[in-house]
Amino acid sequence: MLTTNPFDDDKLREECGVFGVFGSSDAAALTALGLHALQHRGQEAAGIVAYDGSDFPAHRASGQVGDIFGSQDVIESLPGHRAVGHVRYSTAGGKGLRNVQPLFADFEFGGLAIAHNGNLTNALAVRDRLVRRGSIFQSTADTEVFIHLIATSLYEKIVDRLIDALRQVEGAYSLVVMTQKKLIGVRDPLGVRPLVLGKLHDSYIFSSETVGLDIVGAEFIRDVEPGEIVEITDEGIRSIKPFKPVKSRFCIFEHVYFARPDSIVEGTSVYDVRKNIGRELARESAVEADVVVPIPDSGVPSALGYAEESGIPFELGIIRNHYVGRTFIEPTDQIRHLGVKLKHNANPGKLKGKRVVLVDDSIVRGTTSTKIVELVRQAGAAEVHMRITSPPTAHPCFYGVDTPSKEKLMAANHDIAEMAKMIGVDSLAFVSIDGLYRATGLPGRDAENPAFCDACFSGDYPIRLVDHTAEENKNRKLSQLVERRSA
Amino acid sequence: MLTTNPFDDDKLREECGVFGVFGSSDAAALTALGLHALQHRGQEAAGIVAYDGSDFPAHRASGQVGDIFGSQDVIESLPGHRAVGHVRYSTAGGKGLRNVQPLFADFEFGGLAIAHNGNLTNALAVRDRLVRRGSIFQSTADTEVFIHLIATSLYEKIVDRLIDALRQVEGAYSLVVMTQKKLIGVRDPLGVRPLVLGKLHDSYIFSSETVGLDIVGAEFIRDVEPGEIVEITDEGIRSIKPFKPVKSRFCIFEHVYFARPDSIVEGTSVYDVRKNIGRELARESAVEADVVVPIPDSGVPSALGYAEESGIPFELGIIRNHYVGRTFIEPTDQIRHLGVKLKHNANPGKLKGKRVVLVDDSIVRGTTSTKIVELVRQAGAAEVHMRITSPPTAHPCFYGVDTPSKEKLMAANHDIAEMAKMIGVDSLAFVSIDGLYRATGLPGRDAENPAFCDACFSGDYPIRLVDHTAEENKNRKLSQLVERRSA
Amino acid sequence: MLTTNPFDDDKLREECGVFGVFGSSDAAALTALGLHALQHRGQEAAGIVAYDGSDFPAHRASGQVGDIFGSQDVIESLPGHRAVGHVRYSTAGGKGLRNVQPLFADFEFGGLAIAHNGNLTNALAVRDRLVRRGSIFQSTADTEVFIHLIATSLYEKIVDRLIDALRQVEGAYSLVVMTQKKLIGVRDPLGVRPLVLGKLHDSYIFSSETVGLDIVGAEFIRDVEPGEIVEITDEGIRSIKPFKPVKSRFCIFEHVYFARPDSIVEGTSVYDVRKNIGRELARESAVEADVVVPIPDSGVPSALGYAEESGIPFELGIIRNHYVGRTFIEPTDQIRHLGVKLKHNANPGKLKGKRVVLVDDSIVRGTTSTKIVELVRQAGAAEVHMRITSPPTAHPCFYGVDTPSKEKLMAANHDIAEMAKMIGVDSLAFVSIDGLYRATGLPGRDAENPAFCDACFSGDYPIRLVDHTAEENKNRKLSQLVERRSA
Amino acid sequence: MLTTNPFDDDKLREECGVFGVFGSSDAAALTALGLHALQHRGQEAAGIVAYDGSDFPAHRASGQVGDIFGSQDVIESLPGHRAVGHVRYSTAGGKGLRNVQPLFADFEFGGLAIAHNGNLTNALAVRDRLVRRGSIFQSTADTEVFIHLIATSLYEKIVDRLIDALRQVEGAYSLVVMTQKKLIGVRDPLGVRPLVLGKLHDSYIFSSETVGLDIVGAEFIRDVEPGEIVEITDEGIRSIKPFKPVKSRFCIFEHVYFARPDSIVEGTSVYDVRKNIGRELARESAVEADVVVPIPDSGVPSALGYAEESGIPFELGIIRNHYVGRTFIEPTDQIRHLGVKLKHNANPGKLKGKRVVLVDDSIVRGTTSTKIVELVRQAGAAEVHMRITSPPTAHPCFYGVDTPSKEKLMAANHDIAEMAKMIGVDSLAFVSIDGLYRATGLPGRDAENPAFCDACFSGDYPIRLVDHTAEENKNRKLSQLVERRSA
Repeated sequence: MLTTNPFDDDKLREECGVFGVFGSSDAAALTALGLHALQHRGQEAAGIVAYDGSDFPAHRASGQVGDIFGSQDVIESLPGHRAVGHVRYSTAGGKGLRNVQPLFADFEFGGLAIAHNGNLTNALAVRDRLVRRGSIFQSTADTEVFIHLIATSLYEKIVDRLIDALRQVEGAYSLVVMTQKKLIGVRDPLGVRPLVLGKLHDSYIFSSETVGLDIVGAEFIRDVEPGEIVEITDEGIRSIKPFKPVKSRFCIFEHVYFARPDSIVEGTSVYDVRKNIGRELARESAVEADVVVPIPDSGVPSALGYAEESGIPFELGIIRNHYVGRTFIEPTDQIRHLGVKLKHNANPGKLKGKRVVLVDDSIVRGTTSTKIVELVRQAGAAEVHMRITSPPTAHPCFYGVDTPSKEKLMAANHDIAEMAKMIGVDSLAFVSIDGLYRATGLPGRDAENPAFCDACFSGDYPIRLVDHTAEENKNRKLSQLVERRSA
Repeated sequence: MLTTNPFDDDKLREECGVFGVFGSSDAAALTALGLHALQHRGQEAAGIVAYDGSDFPAHRASGQVGDIFGSQDVIESLPGHRAVGHVRYSTAGGKGLRNVQPLFADFEFGGLAIAHNGNLTNALAVRDRLVRRGSIFQSTADTEVFIHLIATSLYEKIVDRLIDALRQVEGAYSLVVMTQKKLIGVRDPLGVRPLVLGKLHDSYIFSSETVGLDIVGAEFIRDVEPGEIVEITDEGIRSIKPFKPVKSRFCIFEHVYFARPDSIVEGTSVYDVRKNIGRELARESAVEADVVVPIPDSGVPSALGYAEESGIPFELGIIRNHYVGRTFIEPTDQIRHLGVKLKHNANPGKLKGKRVVLVDDSIVRGTTSTKIVELVRQAGAAEVHMRITSPPTAHPCFYGVDTPSKEKLMAANHDIAEMAKMIGVDSLAFVSIDGLYRATGLPGRDAENPAFCDACFSGDYPIRLVDHTAEENKNRKLSQLVERRSA
Repeated sequence: MLTTNPFDDDKLREECGVFGVFGSSDAAALTALGLHALQHRGQEAAGIVAYDGSDFPAHRASGQVGDIFGSQDVIESLPGHRAVGHVRYSTAGGKGLRNVQPLFADFEFGGLAIAHNGNLTNALAVRDRLVRRGSIFQSTADTEVFIHLIATSLYEKIVDRLIDALRQVEGAYSLVVMTQKKLIGVRDPLGVRPLVLGKLHDSYIFSSETVGLDIVGAEFIRDVEPGEIVEITDEGIRSIKPFKPVKSRFCIFEHVYFARPDSIVEGTSVYDVRKNIGRELARESAVEADVVVPIPDSGVPSALGYAEESGIPFELGIIRNHYVGRTFIEPTDQIRHLGVKLKHNANPGKLKGKRVVLVDDSIVRGTTSTKIVELVRQAGAAEVHMRITSPPTAHPCFYGVDTPSKEKLMAANHDIAEMAKMIGVDSLAFVSIDGLYRATGLPGRDAENPAFCDACFSGDYPIRLVDHTAEENKNRKLSQLVERRSA
Repeated sequence: MLTTNPFDDDKLREECGVFGVFGSSDAAALTALGLHALQHRGQEAAGIVAYDGSDFPAHRASGQVGDIFGSQDVIESLPGHRAVGHVRYSTAGGKGLRNVQPLFADFEFGGLAIAHNGNLTNALAVRDRLVRRGSIFQSTADTEVFIHLIATSLYEKIVDRLIDALRQVEGAYSLVVMTQKKLIGVRDPLGVRPLVLGKLHDSYIFSSETVGLDIVGAEFIRDVEPGEIVEITDEGIRSIKPFKPVKSRFCIFEHVYFARPDSIVEGTSVYDVRKNIGRELARESAVEADVVVPIPDSGVPSALGYAEESGIPFELGIIRNHYVGRTFIEPTDQIRHLGVKLKHNANPGKLKGKRVVLVDDSIVRGTTSTKIVELVRQAGAAEVHMRITSPPTAHPCFYGVDTPSKEKLMAANHDIAEMAKMIGVDSLAFVSIDGLYRATGLPGRDAENPAFCDACFSGDYPIRLVDHTAEENKNRKLSQLVERRSA
C-alpha cells in the first residue's frame, strides 16, 4: 500500500501525545484543539475523556483529530470543566479500539482516566504478577498496568496509590491523569518524554508540547520536571517529587524530528536547534555544490542552516504534495515503480545539471532516501550529496518510539560507505553526536553523564530493558481476543 | 418514536438467547444461523466468539443477526471449530458495546468466553466485594461477575473455578462457556431459563431453544438439567451436578409468549400449550360472539384453540405489517394519532357488525391493547371481548425478563373491571393460573410446590432478591463512563 | 445468497407501489406512512419528492421505507403541502439510484415528478425515436419516456402534454404526477394496475391500494377508473377521460398474491377472495386428509377457506421466522443444504404421521415448494397434498410484474403430474381459471371478454408486446454507463 | 466553521482539473494518480469514467482523490484501456452528485464522457434554447450544454458534432472527451485554462498540468494549443483547428497561485516565475527589515526571491499545520477568537523584536491576512510589512475561478492605504502589473495586446459575459430539485 500521509513510511514515529485541561467550560473543545496541534505525535487514533461533575463522557476512535472531534455535536457530547486527551500511532501496544487512550476505569473511589506518552520497559513482568492474582486486562497496552496497580494498591489516597504504582514500573512515561477531584501530570524520573504546564485564564493545561498551548492561546508556565507529579485541584497546584533526583535524559530525537519546529522543548527552540544542526553539518561535512535542497517538510530548517553556513543557495528542489489520502492504490506491478512520487515531485529547473546537497533528518530503513535520490537523479542532478541531521540510527528505541527491528535499521547493518552506495549518492554524511549536542547549546556529549537519551544512536540505554531481555517474552501474545472492527 | 419492530412495545421481553457449537468446521456459520432462529429472544445486539486453536476471533455489534453476521467475510473472520453466540435486548444490564456478549477475558490459564441468559439477583453485592479487592469491571453487565469470580478463584482447574463462582452467585442463568479446551453449558439450580443440548454429525450444540437446533438440522438430545454443568471436550461429554438437587421452577412465561411456537420446551410443544390455553379460556370465560380474532402474531395459536373449543369461527380480522423499520417517524401531533396502525390494520369485512373475541397473550401497560380495541371498534365491531392467555401480570421479573416497574404494570394497579373499562372492551378475562398450569399438562398449580416460576403473576419469587432489596442500590450507577458511540 | 426477506425468492413480484398527497402540511410524513403500507409492492428502493411552493425537495434511496424515511430529520428535509412517493423492486428497469422513482425533471414550465406502477410495452420503440432527435436519457427506466414525451410535446398546457404522451405509449401504468400546481393520478385504458383515490380532511390522496389510505386514517373515495386522468388543484378535483372506453382488464394476480389481504381491490375484499379460492379448491380438488396447513404468510386465508369448506382442521404446521436480514450467509457446501429453513420451520406435532394439505398461492420455479415439501416430510408427514390458489403460471408478465423467463417457469415446461413428482407431493392441484374467477364473484371466465388480465395463466395478452417482439431488442443494453455505488 | 483544509478560506479557487488516458491497461489507476497530483485544482469531489470496450464504468463522489480512488477494489471496478477524470471544487455549477464530473450521456452513436475545466459565459442562454426545444437537463453544470448540443447536432460524425457545439458556446474551457473510439482534448480559442499532452510508453495522456504527467512518469510532449482539438484514436493523433486563430490569453493567476510550483506552464517554470515576482517586489517596494517570512505554503518561492534580491534573511517565521480535518469545531464564542491558529502558528524566536516582511500571493477578502498579521504582532514583531505577489484583485473572474462578489473583494472597495490600515500592517505593497508580466519573461504588459488574461486585476475581460449581463439571470435558479444526500 502506498501512503501519502504526513508520517513518512520510513521515519521513526513518536507514539503518542497527551493533553489535559482543568477548569474551563470549554474543556473538551480546548482538548480537541490541543490534540490537533499534537497530531504529528500520533495520527491513527485519538480520544478524549471529560468529567462533568458526575460522569466521565468519553469518545475514542480511529482516525485524525479533525475527523473525530471536528463536529459540534461530538464536542457537546463531552461536557464538563475538565478533560484529558490522547493521540496515538496505532501499532503502539496493539491495534484495536480497546487500546485507544485515554484508558478509563471505575475504582472503589470513583472513575479515573489516564493518558500516557512513553513506554514501560517492565510492563509484561508487572502484568504477569497482576494476572496471577486475578486482574483482568481489557487491553494489550502497557498503560493498563497503571490502572491495575492503582486498583490493587493498599494505600487509601489516590495520589499515594499512584505513587505506589509508579514505584513498581520502569520505563518512559509522561502521564495526564484525571479523577473526580484532580488533574495530575507526571513525568518519569529521567524525563525522557516531554510534558509542559500552561495556563489559560483560570484553567491549567498539560500538553506534550508548547504548540498545544499556542493553539489555544495559553501561556507557557514551565516544563513538568523529570520525576515530578503536578497535581491540580480546585485548591490550586501542588508539586510532589516522590523519587530520588537523578540526572535527566530527555530524548534528543524530539529535537531532531519528533517535536514541531515551532515548539519550545526543554527551554530551547526546536527550529533553532534544527538550523544549528544544519550549520554543524555544513562545517563538519562541507562539499562543493550548487544548491542545498531540503527533503520536505522536516529537512527545511536544517537546509536553511546549511545554506547560510555554506553560502550555497537554498532552493525548493523537491515539492511535496500535502493532500492526504490515508492510503492509496494497491498498485499493479507497472504502477508500483512510481513509488515515492505520490508525495514528492522534482522541481526540475533547480536540479538539472546541478551539484545538489540533499538535507534529511534520518535514515531508518533507507527506502525513502533511495527513491528520493533516484527522483533527483532523474531530474538531471549532476551530483547528489546527502547530509543527515542525526547520527546513524543503529539501535531500536524502547521508550515510546516505533522503530523497526535492528535487522531493518540500515545503519545497524552497514557502514556509511555502504549506505552511500545503496542509496545512490556521491557522498553521505551524518552529523556527529557531539555536533548534535552542540546544536542544542551544549559543548558536546559528556560520555560519563550524557544530557540526553541518545540510545538510538549510541546504544546507551538509560533505563534497563526488563521485558525485552526476558526469554519468556519472545513472540509473546498479550491477548487471545481478535476483535473484528465494527464497520 | 413509533416502532414497527417485531418486539411489540408493550410486551415483556426475554432478554437473551445463547448458542454454542463444539467440533464443526462451520462453527461460526452454524452459530449465526442458531442465533437467527433465536432472534426473538433479543434483537438489539448480537455477538459470536470463536476459537481457532490459538486465538478467539470475535465480532459483537448492535443490530440484528442477519445484518451483523449475514455476509461471508464476517463469517470467514471467525474461523475455528468452536464458537459461542449471544443475542440480547439492549437495555439489559446497560447499553453500549462493552455490554454486548459473549464476554471474553484473558486469564492466567488462557482465554474464556461466556454467554449468559438470565439475571443474577446478587450481582451488585458480589461486584462490590470484587471491586474492593481491586478488580476492574469493564462492563455494567451482571455477567461480568462470573469472569472476576473465575479469575480470583484459588482453585486450579477451570471447572472448579467455575463451580466456585456459581456457588457465590444467586439468580437465573443459562450459560454457555468456551475455553481453549472445552465448551460448557450450565443451568441454575432452579432451571428458570431454558438450555438444550443437540448433536449435528460429530458436533455438539447448546441452544436456548430447540428451534436453534432445527435451523441447522441438528438432533435434539435433551435439556440441560437444572443445576447441571455439561462439559464437552475432545474426550466427549461429561455431566457435573455440583448443587444439592431442588425442585425446578422453569419460567412459565416461556410457554405463554417468549419461546417460539415451534419450539419444544421442557418436553412440551409450545404451540400445543398455547392452543390449550385458548381452549381453557373458551371454557373459563365463554362469551356469545361471531368471530374469534387473534392479535397477530403471538395470539394465533391460542385463538385457534379458542375457536375450536367454542365453535366460533376464526378469522384474521387484524392484519400485521411485517416490514421492519427499526424505528419510524417521530410524528407531528397530527400524525401521532395514527399510532398502532403502523403495525396493525383492520380487515374490515371480518369485523363490521360482528361480536368479536380478541385473543392476546398479556396486558403489560395496556397501551397496545387500547389502540387495538380502538382499531377494531373503528372497523365497526358490535362488541369487543378481550381474552388474555396469561393471568394478570402484576409483579416485575428479576430473572432475566425486562418488565416495567410495578407502577406501570396495569394489573398491579387496577382490577379487571377497571382494566376492561380503560381498554375499552365489553368484557375482559384472563386465563386462571390453574388453567394455565393445566394447559401445560399438569392438574393445576400446586401452591406448596409449584412446578414453574410464575412470580410475575403470583409474586412468589423462588430466588431471593438480594440486590433489589438492598437500600444502597437505589438509583445506583454502575459506571461513570459514558461512551459516545462511534458512528 | 440465502435471503430471509419477506419477498420469497420464488414468487412473482409486483414491481411498484405509488402514493401521492395534495394539500396537507404533513404531506411527506403521510407519504412515508403510505409507502410503508405499500412496502409489499416493492421493497428494495423508495423515494419521495415533495413540493414546497418553490422547490421540489427529494429523497430517493435503496432500502426499506422505514429505514429511509423513518427519521424526523429526513421528513423535515421534505417540506411542503404536496408529495409523491414510490416503492420499487430494484431490478425493474435496471438497478442503480438513477432509476429510483419518483423521476423528476425541470421543464420549461417548471418541475415535474412522476411515479409509475406498471410497465410500458413499447418504451424502447419510443425511446429510440426520442434519442434519435437528441433527447438524453438519464435512466434505463421505461418511465423516463413519459418525461421526454412531455418535454418535446408541442402542446402548451401540461395536461395536454401529458395526454399527448399517453397516446404514444402502450402498456400498463398507474401514474401519480406532481407539478407546481397539480397532483394528477392516471390509469391506463385497461386499468391493469390499481390506483385509488382517498381523502383525509381537506387533502386528497392517491394510493396503489386502500391499505395506504387506512394507515393514515384516510377515507376511501373511489378507484381511479381505467383510462381516467384525475387532476387535483387548489380549485378541486377534475376527471378527464381522453381515451375511447374499452372493457377493463384488471390484473387478477393482485387478488391472488400481490395485494395485501386487508385491501379492498376494485370493490372486493382481497381476504374474502382468497378464502373463496380456498373453498373452490376444496370443492374442485378434495382429498382425504388430517390437517390443512398454510404456507405462511400468503397461504393463510385460502387455507382457512379450504379448512372451513372441507371440514379438515386448520393448523399452523409451518412457522415462519419474520426477522428480516436482507441477505444471509453465503453458505459453505455443508450449510447450503439448510436452505429454506432460514425462513420456515416445521411445527412437528402438527405434521407427524398426518396426511397434510399444504396451501400455497403459486408455483413459479418450484424451488421453494420443493424445499417446503421436504421440510414437511422430514417432520414425519404421512402424505403431502399441495393445493395452489392460482392456475399454473405458464406465461411471463410484461405489465409490471417481475417473472422469470419462460424456460424457468415450471408450469410452462411440465404438466401437473410431472410437477407433482418434481416437488415430491402425493397430489398436486391448482384452482381452475373459472374457479378463480368465481372466487372474485363472477360466474366464471368469459373467454370472449374476460374481466381480468390473466395472461400469466392463459397467455392471452390484452396489450400488444411491441418491444418484446422486436428483433433488435434481444439482449439490448439501454445504457453503457455502469456506475459504482457510493459506499 | 473553522477549516484546516489546504485550500485557504480566503483564496481564489481554481474550480477544476482534468485528466485522460488513452491506451493503457492501467488507465483508471493512472487517472487516479493524475487526479491526485491535480488535487490542488479542486478538492471537494472527483470522478473517473473508464471505457472497457463495451461499457463505461464510472465512479464519482464527494471527497478527496485518495479517499475516493485509493483502494484497489475501486480501481478494479473501473477496467479498460481508456479513462477520463476530473477534480472539482464543489460550489462550481451547483452542489450535489449530479454535478460531479465527468458527465456521461448515452447518444444514438454510443456513450460519451466529458470533463471540463473552465466556465462558459453563455451557458444559460444556450440552455434556455435547448430546454425550449425539449432537452431535459440533469445537472446545473454549464458543462451539460456540451452534451445536449452534441446530441441535437445534425452533423453525423462525433468530431463534427463537437465542433458544432464549440461554435455555439463562449467562455473558457479545457475539455477531455472520451467516446467508444476516441479520447479528445480541447482548449478554447483564447487558451484561458491549461491543458497539456503527454506520453507514457504507448499511451497518450491529457492533464491540466505537467505535475499530472510527472506523477505517472509520463513524458511531456506539448501544450494543447488554444483553439486546438487533439483527437487520439487507435490510428494515432490528429490535430484539428476549427477556429480562426486569435492571440491567446492564458490566465496569469495560474502562475501566481493556482498551478503547482513544480509545474511547467506554457513553457515556463511556475517556481521560477514566483521567485521572479519576489525579486520584482524587492525592487519595486523595498523596505528596511530584519527577516523575510513567507505565509506558507504558497508564499515560499516568492519570499526566497525577495530575500535573495534584498539580502534580508529568509526564515520560516510562520509554521503551518498540515493535518487536514475537512472541518473543525463550530466554536463557542470563547474559542472563536482562536481563529487562524488552527492552520498557522508563529515561530516566536524568528519574529520577536524583528522588522518582518510578510510575503503572500493575494488579498481577496482580507480576513486571513488580518489574522496572520495579528499572530505575527502577538509574537512580538517590531514592524510588519506585507508584500503581495499579485496586483490588487479588484474584479471577479467568470472563466472558471471561484471569486467572491465584487462587494467582498477588499481591493475593489478600498485603496492600498486603507487596506494596509485594515489589515494592520506598517506598509503594504502589491507587485505592479508590469512587474508581474516581467516575472514571466515578458518586457511588461502590452496594453493593446496583453499576453495574458488578467481580468481579475485589470477588469479587461477578453470574452464577453453574455449570461452575467442578461437581466433575466439575476438570482436565477437552474433546477427546482433539491436532493437530499444519501448518507
